Amino acid sequence: METKEIKSISKAAIRRMPLYLSLVKQQIAMGEKTLSSTFIAEKLNTEAIQVRKDLAATGVVGQPRLGFCSEELAAAIERLLGWDNLQEAFLIGAGNLGSALIGYEPFIENGLNIVAAFDNDSDKIGTEIRGVKVLSIDRLENLIGRMHIKLAILTVPVEVAQQTAERLVSDGIEAIWNFTPTKIIVPDEVIVERTDLAAGYAQISSRLATKAQRKAAENG
Amino acid sequence: METKEIKSISKAAIRRMPLYLSLVKQQIAMGEKTLSSTFIAEKLNTEAIQVRKDLAATGVVGQPRLGFCSEELAAAIERLLGWDNLQEAFLIGAGNLGSALIGYEPFIENGLNIVAAFDNDSDKIGTEIRGVKVLSIDRLENLIGRMHIKLAILTVPVEVAQQTAERLVSDGIEAIWNFTPTKIIVPDEVIVERTDLAAGYAQISSRLATKAQRKAAENG
Repeated sequence: METKEIKSISKAAIRRMPLYLSLVKQQIAMGEKTLSSTFIAEKLNTEAIQVRKDLAATGVVGQPRLGFCSEELAAAIERLLGWDNLQEAFLIGAGNLGSALIGYEPFIENGLNIVAAFDNDSDKIGTEIRGVKVLSIDRLENLIGRMHIKLAILTVPVEVAQQTAERLVSDGIEAIWNFTPTKIIVPDEVIVERTDLAAGYAQISSRLATKAQRKAAENG
Repeated sequence: METKEIKSISKAAIRRMPLYLSLVKQQIAMGEKTLSSTFIAEKLNTEAIQVRKDLAATGVVGQPRLGFCSEELAAAIERLLGWDNLQEAFLIGAGNLGSALIGYEPFIENGLNIVAAFDNDSDKIGTEIRGVKVLSIDRLENLIGRMHIKLAILTVPVEVAQQTAERLVSDGIEAIWNFTPTKIIVPDEVIVERTDLAAGYAQISSRLATKAQRKAAENG
């Protein structure tokens, strides 16, 4: 039953859930016991009908005039996202970005538990990043199976992204969260999500460039 | 003419440009003088027709049988994205994520120059992160105008995201790159791009949860 519910939610709605959760938690912290879809829509600069549709997927039913029970809604979103359970993960590539993800509060608060980091830099191996040990990448094969790790966060340099992904797959990883600025090609059964920092930069930078060109054109 | 060209490109195509650029640069490093759209499509796990359509927007014309000139293509993508110029930016919020963005190689390589960071934590103010000074947030107002900064990267805690954005807008910022897990509401003329790390986590975590539920259902 629950599986069926989750399957019926669009990818876009899933991506919006953290926005709802963040707002609901803020409102709980401010003592708000109920939240209307109109209020949520206003705060998130969107339409109430979309809010209602998205939140219907959580199974929580709002009360007329009052709206959703805040606590119930937060718990339902967390359950929907699997954020009510701890999600253990390995971090592959302990550079700047990887280190930041280890200490990134919104992940920690939502159950992401990076249990070890891997790197091939002998200066990093043996050190700790906020309590997380950096191990040699050569120990990866052994540890994925032994520690029953399903999720790997890929923050290696782009040049070795594909080969590292293949290594993870042959070690039995179930999901790869790819932060490298390239696509990785893996078998269909492996869950892959790519977070593309460069895409965001491309977007904002091209819009600034267009704006500057338009201004220059207007000024002669 | 150039402005017109840029305006005709879809947001999705702009977001794909860094993928093309990264691949083209890797191939240049390997000595490849030309690249066919078929080759690019194969490497990026996409269709050649999409590659041809996307790259047509750069203005570079491929040669029959040979494909695109690698160097020319790289330069054209950089021009299209505004990555041929240095993009100076302020970082607002010098936490883990903010610090990582200062040292993030793919940004540095593509012209993003974070010239100062701002925070309200007296322990951080006066320190340096990879050569970038951390200044008191109270100096923001003065410096945005004086240093002609157009872009602010927002990595403050979610609770203060909206008020910080409003402060940036009233100081005349033109673009805000929002890394906080909330939407910010600003006037239409301000360019806003949100990079949503939590959305990626929601996606991968909900898919893992669904998979686990399905497995559990299958096993009884």
